[in-house]
Amino acid sequence: MKIRVGVLGARGRMGSESVQALSNAQDMECVAALDLGDDLSLLLEKKVDVVVDFTTPDSVMENLKFVISNNIHAVVGTTGIDKTQLKEVEELASAHKSVGVLIAPNFGLGAVLAMRFAKLAAPHFESAEIIELHHPAKVDAPSGTAMATAEIIAQARKTAGLGPIPDGTTKEIAGSRGASVEGIHIHALRLRGLVAHQEIIFGDQGETLTIRHDSIDRSGFMPGVLLGIRKVASHPGLTVGLDKYLFLD
Amino acid sequence: MKIRVGVLGARGRMGSESVQALSNAQDMECVAALDLGDDLSLLLEKKVDVVVDFTTPDSVMENLKFVISNNIHAVVGTTGIDKTQLKEVEELASAHKSVGVLIAPNFGLGAVLAMRFAKLAAPHFESAEIIELHHPAKVDAPSGTAMATAEIIAQARKTAGLGPIPDGTTKEIAGSRGASVEGIHIHALRLRGLVAHQEIIFGDQGETLTIRHDSIDRSGFMPGVLLGIRKVASHPGLTVGLDKYLFLD
Amino acid sequence: MKIRVGVLGARGRMGSESVQALSNAQDMECVAALDLGDDLSLLLEKKVDVVVDFTTPDSVMENLKFVISNNIHAVVGTTGIDKTQLKEVEELASAHKSVGVLIAPNFGLGAVLAMRFAKLAAPHFESAEIIELHHPAKVDAPSGTAMATAEIIAQARKTAGLGPIPDGTTKEIAGSRGASVEGIHIHALRLRGLVAHQEIIFGDQGETLTIRHDSIDRSGFMPGVLLGIRKVASHPGLTVGLDKYLFLD
Amino acid sequence: MKIRVGVLGARGRMGSESVQALSNAQDMECVAALDLGDDLSLLLEKKVDVVVDFTTPDSVMENLKFVISNNIHAVVGTTGIDKTQLKEVEELASAHKSVGVLIAPNFGLGAVLAMRFAKLAAPHFESAEIIELHHPAKVDAPSGTAMATAEIIAQARKTAGLGPIPDGTTKEIAGSRGASVEGIHIHALRLRGLVAHQEIIFGDQGETLTIRHDSIDRSGFMPGVLLGIRKVASHPGLTVGLDKYLFLD
Repeated sequence: MKIRVGVLGARGRMGSESVQALSNAQDMECVAALDLGDDLSLLLEKKVDVVVDFTTPDSVMENLKFVISNNIHAVVGTTGIDKTQLKEVEELASAHKSVGVLIAPNFGLGAVLAMRFAKLAAPHFESAEIIELHHPAKVDAPSGTAMATAEIIAQARKTAGLGPIPDGTTKEIAGSRGASVEGIHIHALRLRGLVAHQEIIFGDQGETLTIRHDSIDRSGFMPGVLLGIRKVASHPGLTVGLDKYLFLD
Repeated sequence: MKIRVGVLGARGRMGSESVQALSNAQDMECVAALDLGDDLSLLLEKKVDVVVDFTTPDSVMENLKFVISNNIHAVVGTTGIDKTQLKEVEELASAHKSVGVLIAPNFGLGAVLAMRFAKLAAPHFESAEIIELHHPAKVDAPSGTAMATAEIIAQARKTAGLGPIPDGTTKEIAGSRGASVEGIHIHALRLRGLVAHQEIIFGDQGETLTIRHDSIDRSGFMPGVLLGIRKVASHPGLTVGLDKYLFLD
Repeated sequence: MKIRVGVLGARGRMGSESVQALSNAQDMECVAALDLGDDLSLLLEKKVDVVVDFTTPDSVMENLKFVISNNIHAVVGTTGIDKTQLKEVEELASAHKSVGVLIAPNFGLGAVLAMRFAKLAAPHFESAEIIELHHPAKVDAPSGTAMATAEIIAQARKTAGLGPIPDGTTKEIAGSRGASVEGIHIHALRLRGLVAHQEIIFGDQGETLTIRHDSIDRSGFMPGVLLGIRKVASHPGLTVGLDKYLFLD
Repeated sequence: MKIRVGVLGARGRMGSESVQALSNAQDMECVAALDLGDDLSLLLEKKVDVVVDFTTPDSVMENLKFVISNNIHAVVGTTGIDKTQLKEVEELASAHKSVGVLIAPNFGLGAVLAMRFAKLAAPHFESAEIIELHHPAKVDAPSGTAMATAEIIAQARKTAGLGPIPDGTTKEIAGSRGASVEGIHIHALRLRGLVAHQEIIFGDQGETLTIRHDSIDRSGFMPGVLLGIRKVASHPGLTVGLDKYLFLD
């Protein structure tokens, strides 16, 4: 039997991608595609099992209250949910013990895997640096993903008892060694023709290990969304981050 | 207290690298460096805790009998040990329950990690291929590591229920699509100036994930050897493959 | 004064991209956008300086006859023009000495430059191999660009008096060393999520030089088309290949 | 007939590499290997055609005076020669019109070619950035080669009339966008296990072009030294930079 999915924010960029992706999936179907102003009770009429929410920070909490209290699972990609709201969702979920809620800031499986690999590799290499490459319209540098990756590497090094990364630089033109985030150097490139790319390089005596992730299309997030839909029912309570569904710790 | 290490095959390439690496390590010391014809009883005199064996298939079994029966742990990098011999080592070890024996075909942490990452990524991508690049004196193509990696990917895909990798090729010059090992395509390049390199590429709608390992020096194996020495005492019995010390499953 | 451009095949994929690109260019304007069935005399009415032709092998010769005999320059991206037809165009052009005709199989400046660099690098390296990576819907392997690049490298090596590329392979799984085109090995990868990519690797004692070209969008051809439009008037007669406009030999 | 070569500084690192490389070359032979304190008149006795100088800024001028005035060609890799000295060499050479002198700061053919390719590609791409990666013992960042490459790109862009490179960054952690050298951003990575590597990335709408040079061994300079020896006799007068022997402009 197919999973019955409702998409909230169905006319937005990620929402419409989700509707499209659902139409190609064999084990699930989109039975309700709602956007601003549509009545949520349609989710009950259509007997929706899982809701996908790509709306706004303003709408998402109302949606989740309705959905959770009606025992519908939720996969949430809406960004901008703060810690107070997370706590509120957690309480809602604890009152409906069978309901699973996944809130994920990034549904790109490649990015999630790359960060996991970084965590696993970090304890075994003396050196680590990050290069991220994006289109020139991006306003922030480094990218949020690069910063998160640096924090993961820094934490894994600390846990493993590694000291500072060796760096003999004594004569430097400002900026050439990148930005240091918790001791991990990040280099941000901005070039026309790129989309979103990241390279994590680990080095030790005689060898290097490089993890590269290239994302060239928003459709790259869809396998992660579908994975979330498939697994949310078997993960009751609130889960933050898609990686929790992929790895045990 | 430092771990007291004895190196067998100490005048060979890997053995002498090991002696060198031990002299730089803070938590262990080389107290015996033996080669062909030297008396193994020196290991007892010197109160060796762990033996590192980089000898030959002819010598290694005699060495292991002596070492295990004297309750010395062993880290073995000697290649060419067959299944019958493995079984024999297992029996020897089972009679000396506190002794740990690690037999590892590859001490390159980068290669071990790359293979692990391949296993973790494989279920999440529709496509996967392998490129390996080596110096032109290499006689076999593809490399043993590439073949092992292909088998790991093929197995992980099977477990995840993935079908064949999409390939629309209908018009091909023979060889252009590489060698297929259990359905995974491997491409072997041979160029002057290279040493040993491997790239594993995973692709799905809108994104690719690449894991690259570059090994440019035999010294790259030493962190793995030292890791083995540090961990062998806490892994009694026979262990095959350094990855067993790094990951739980 | 702006160059007045007419686009033939304006409703096709490349033609409509050209119309779009022209609307963003500062030094030229699209004054006529024609497709199948439209009357070519509009080109005269609109005082077109340069025609861009992305039509079909069936239409292109009629178009060129009209255009050349009316002293309009032509930039042709239509593929499938054979040698007999090329000769015919050459004769037409020779009768209208001021008219320039550019026929280019590839308007990607990156690809054109990559091939030029391959020609320049080839004499200086003992080894050379090519990797091309495309989406899995591609039917031919290796790609036409990879084959053309291999021929350029082989020719440059021959001119420089280089012998065969060193390859110690004696034990091979069929296909692992790729396809050999005039002695240059080509490896074709097909992965979901890729578009069109090529890597040319040169190796010699102690160093490698890699030229990589990534094309992720048809829009990548437009700078080359605009370059052709800008330069065609100053290159009377028939020119085959955009590289002739970029380099002197 | 083989070219008769004398090596000055034959016991130094580059000098001894040169002696070694000469012993493997078919069209030349090392007939004199001199170091500090040896008598230069041996060069005359041995009828040396070409001298290779890898000595010091203190010795090189005396060597060149002797060599040039005795009509011996010179290939000089000694670094630290200043502009006054260059002028002096030029005058010496002008008095011995048949003598060729090549002074080259970098004999790596890969690096020389990469810089040439950068010059050729720069006019055709809206964006360009440089990544250089070295071992952590390197004291300067960015590398001299990266700085020289940035200057070449900046000059080529200026000549082509290109404006500033697009960069939408408004929110930046200091250093993340690298060092700007004449408007070209350079990113310097320092990782254990690396030697000397550089990547030049050009980007435009829909495509990127990357030129990567990996140098893992001092032996990588030898093909360039041999090329210099072969060509110096046919380039009378002073030439600065190996690229002058490879390209016409």
